[in-house]
Amino acid sequence: SSVINLILLKILFKQVCEWKEPEELAQLLDLELRATGEPQQRLLQRVKDVAKYSIKTSHPRFFNQQFGGVDYHALAGRFLTETLNTNLFTYEVAPVFVLMETEVLRGLRQLVGWTEGDGIFCPGGSTSNMYAMNLARYRLFPEVKSQGVWSLPRLTIFTSPESHYSVKKGAAFLGIGTDNVILVKVDDGGHMIPEDLDTKINVAKSLGAVPFLVSCTSGTTVQGAFDPLDRIADVCEKHKLWMHVDAAWGGSVLFSEQHRHLMKGVDRANSVAWNPHKMLIAGLQCSALLLQDTTVSANATYLFQQDKFYDVNLDVGDKSVQCSRKVDCLKLWLMWKAVGSTGLAERVDKAFFLVRYLVEQMKKREGFHLLRDPEYVNVCFWFIPPSMRGKEGNADYQDRLAKVAPVIKERMMKQGTMMVGYQPLGNKVNFFRVIVFSPLVSQKDMDFFLDEIERLGNDL
Amino acid sequence: SSVINLILLKILFKQVCEWKEPEELAQLLDLELRATGEPQQRLLQRVKDVAKYSIKTSHPRFFNQQFGGVDYHALAGRFLTETLNTNLFTYEVAPVFVLMETEVLRGLRQLVGWTEGDGIFCPGGSTSNMYAMNLARYRLFPEVKSQGVWSLPRLTIFTSPESHYSVKKGAAFLGIGTDNVILVKVDDGGHMIPEDLDTKINVAKSLGAVPFLVSCTSGTTVQGAFDPLDRIADVCEKHKLWMHVDAAWGGSVLFSEQHRHLMKGVDRANSVAWNPHKMLIAGLQCSALLLQDTTVSANATYLFQQDKFYDVNLDVGDKSVQCSRKVDCLKLWLMWKAVGSTGLAERVDKAFFLVRYLVEQMKKREGFHLLRDPEYVNVCFWFIPPSMRGKEGNADYQDRLAKVAPVIKERMMKQGTMMVGYQPLGNKVNFFRVIVFSPLVSQKDMDFFLDEIERLGNDL
Repeated sequence: SSVINLILLKILFKQVCEWKEPEELAQLLDLELRATGEPQQRLLQRVKDVAKYSIKTSHPRFFNQQFGGVDYHALAGRFLTETLNTNLFTYEVAPVFVLMETEVLRGLRQLVGWTEGDGIFCPGGSTSNMYAMNLARYRLFPEVKSQGVWSLPRLTIFTSPESHYSVKKGAAFLGIGTDNVILVKVDDGGHMIPEDLDTKINVAKSLGAVPFLVSCTSGTTVQGAFDPLDRIADVCEKHKLWMHVDAAWGGSVLFSEQHRHLMKGVDRANSVAWNPHKMLIAGLQCSALLLQDTTVSANATYLFQQDKFYDVNLDVGDKSVQCSRKVDCLKLWLMWKAVGSTGLAERVDKAFFLVRYLVEQMKKREGFHLLRDPEYVNVCFWFIPPSMRGKEGNADYQDRLAKVAPVIKERMMKQGTMMVGYQPLGNKVNFFRVIVFSPLVSQKDMDFFLDEIERLGNDL
Repeated sequence: SSVINLILLKILFKQVCEWKEPEELAQLLDLELRATGEPQQRLLQRVKDVAKYSIKTSHPRFFNQQFGGVDYHALAGRFLTETLNTNLFTYEVAPVFVLMETEVLRGLRQLVGWTEGDGIFCPGGSTSNMYAMNLARYRLFPEVKSQGVWSLPRLTIFTSPESHYSVKKGAAFLGIGTDNVILVKVDDGGHMIPEDLDTKINVAKSLGAVPFLVSCTSGTTVQGAFDPLDRIADVCEKHKLWMHVDAAWGGSVLFSEQHRHLMKGVDRANSVAWNPHKMLIAGLQCSALLLQDTTVSANATYLFQQDKFYDVNLDVGDKSVQCSRKVDCLKLWLMWKAVGSTGLAERVDKAFFLVRYLVEQMKKREGFHLLRDPEYVNVCFWFIPPSMRGKEGNADYQDRLAKVAPVIKERMMKQGTMMVGYQPLGNKVNFFRVIVFSPLVSQKDMDFFLDEIERLGNDL
């Protein structure tokens, strides 16, 4: 663990990554598994190499994804989780964690605005979203559990084209099919349009399908948009549909008095997916599915002994489609105890503040074109190299612009100075999406970010 | 981390558990999450309390489940995984682990007997089993992905009544339905009977269903039985069914030259689920799904950028129904490097050796009745208290026997001396199932186990 401390200390002064081509890296690491074991000295070197060539996601200049940063209380919780190595399925083997998970879920539900309800930690937001689909389907047609989808009319799910791809993946996995995921129109900011949702539901009904679930998004992956939950809830109520909120990314705004209005209406949802491993930097993975109702359970009892000497309702394993289930609550609980709800709220507010600063600075510099003013902490922008400025009318402008971000990204990775992602969206060609939320990030890092993009792209 | 070292050292001299009633434990832990943070000293006490009241699953007298024990190399790998905190979806953010996972999966596939193939680490064996179902369904009817199960004939899965409950849970989750899981008869030892499988497949066909998958088990949860894979493979070939082997528990015998015959025929399977977090004590969770074929992918590309500067085939995220996916390969890789395949084989052989010793000692003592000679490292037995011996003919004998294990278990937990599970099976009333596989376990622990059962149960 002294090696680990060393790694953590070094990160702050070192590169975000040390890029190697896959073939070279494979050679350096000598990954092959052999018959004979190796001496301690050799193993120590291996540990160092693994750390050296891995991405330093806790580095303040890792802006690549919705995870990153580090909280040392959460990290201590993760080490303790690994040391205790137990399984969250019965009170018998996880007495502390069964109670703790209940309490953490209660804390998260309170922020949603629910005094009752249920929930479970899942291995990632995609799984949480699948659970919601499964529960919604079961509520409407409990016979699906024994008879399968054949006994049901054709079901349809509604979501926006900017929602997470797990909605479609989940529909495929659950036997519902991607064709039965109906995409509702979004406005320019990427928000689902409730009127179009209503129209699409009516169309689906007229075609003989049974709409059963709307998956809204609080904090879309690319733009960070928050769907208008209150107005979507009206539509869901009208049609009696399960309202699921995929707040995997955006949920943490609920801590902030200043920003929780973005999710106004979330208390009217049936289920909410929220990943504290993202903005709250609890560490991968920490993903909660919260339920308003306590009475829904898709997986009734069939393996947990009923003749135990304690309350078998504490054997939570039967709630899960997993059997082994990792303890994901301790890291969040310990961090929450350490900094309090107030401390977590401050972090959220700080991220919004830094983003505001970054956006102001971008507007002062010539080469940065924002897609739009950010609603959240995703800042989407094109970098326009000097050679392209003022040439928006040229026929090849969009084609050239599409190639800028990939080249800058390649140079950035190979020099290891920072990491930020890019992607196209609809008819918008490749643009950068910088994500700001780690408490380790400062205004200086924001300035560095802009300077570095210019340095890497000014000759293009 | 000095706290963690202390915990690890103390475990060897302390109780397996310190039982508290849920209400008392909740009070002791003061789990409530508040607005204000807490000072370091208080947090340190909390960490100690969490450890104190948690089950010591690495204690050599934790015989309760198929996980437990500790390997310090694997634990170092787990700490490093937590510290590096990355996500296994692209080469960009996980260069080391994308390559490492590939190599570890190759190593596991080699033991299965495959030179090619594919695979993925999943959050537990239940998920691995669901993936296998999803892939088998997709291979036969690729249209399921877009159109859902409605476009398909009624599908049926075949498994034994002693297989893991995740087969049924998975069928429910995937929209296939538990009624479409057909249970094939087992012999007295709990092995699926291939002739009955053939019969059941024919019956299902005659009823208009489409059999598509057989889920065999290598190492059943309770009895540790290994289904006869070679003979089942004949049936699967004859009917052209996907053969899945749930070797979550038993797979590790493949390391041992002496015991791998238990899985003879596994190389004829289409997919194998294998949890190194069980017998190999890699730590929760570490669960691999291995595939013989490289061409099957149920989830084609739709979010991973194709204009990257490296080979995008290294972006493995699209294989998974998860988006965030934890790194589960490092702990296994580091342990494997440390002790070699030979060292892992020795551990497997040692477990079988200790079980043989335990069984011999049981046969020498009056109160222990084995269900049968164990095939693996699950030893299933009834303890017959002195007052019940020789009274097998009494009308209330089975009722009384059913109550023995729960009482002994309660006393055991409350005194914290060891942990072992019990359950009924079919018409067999509650019996103990002791699981022996941790390298920390010695013959002395086996003797203690027997003495302790007698001490706790002799007055019943």
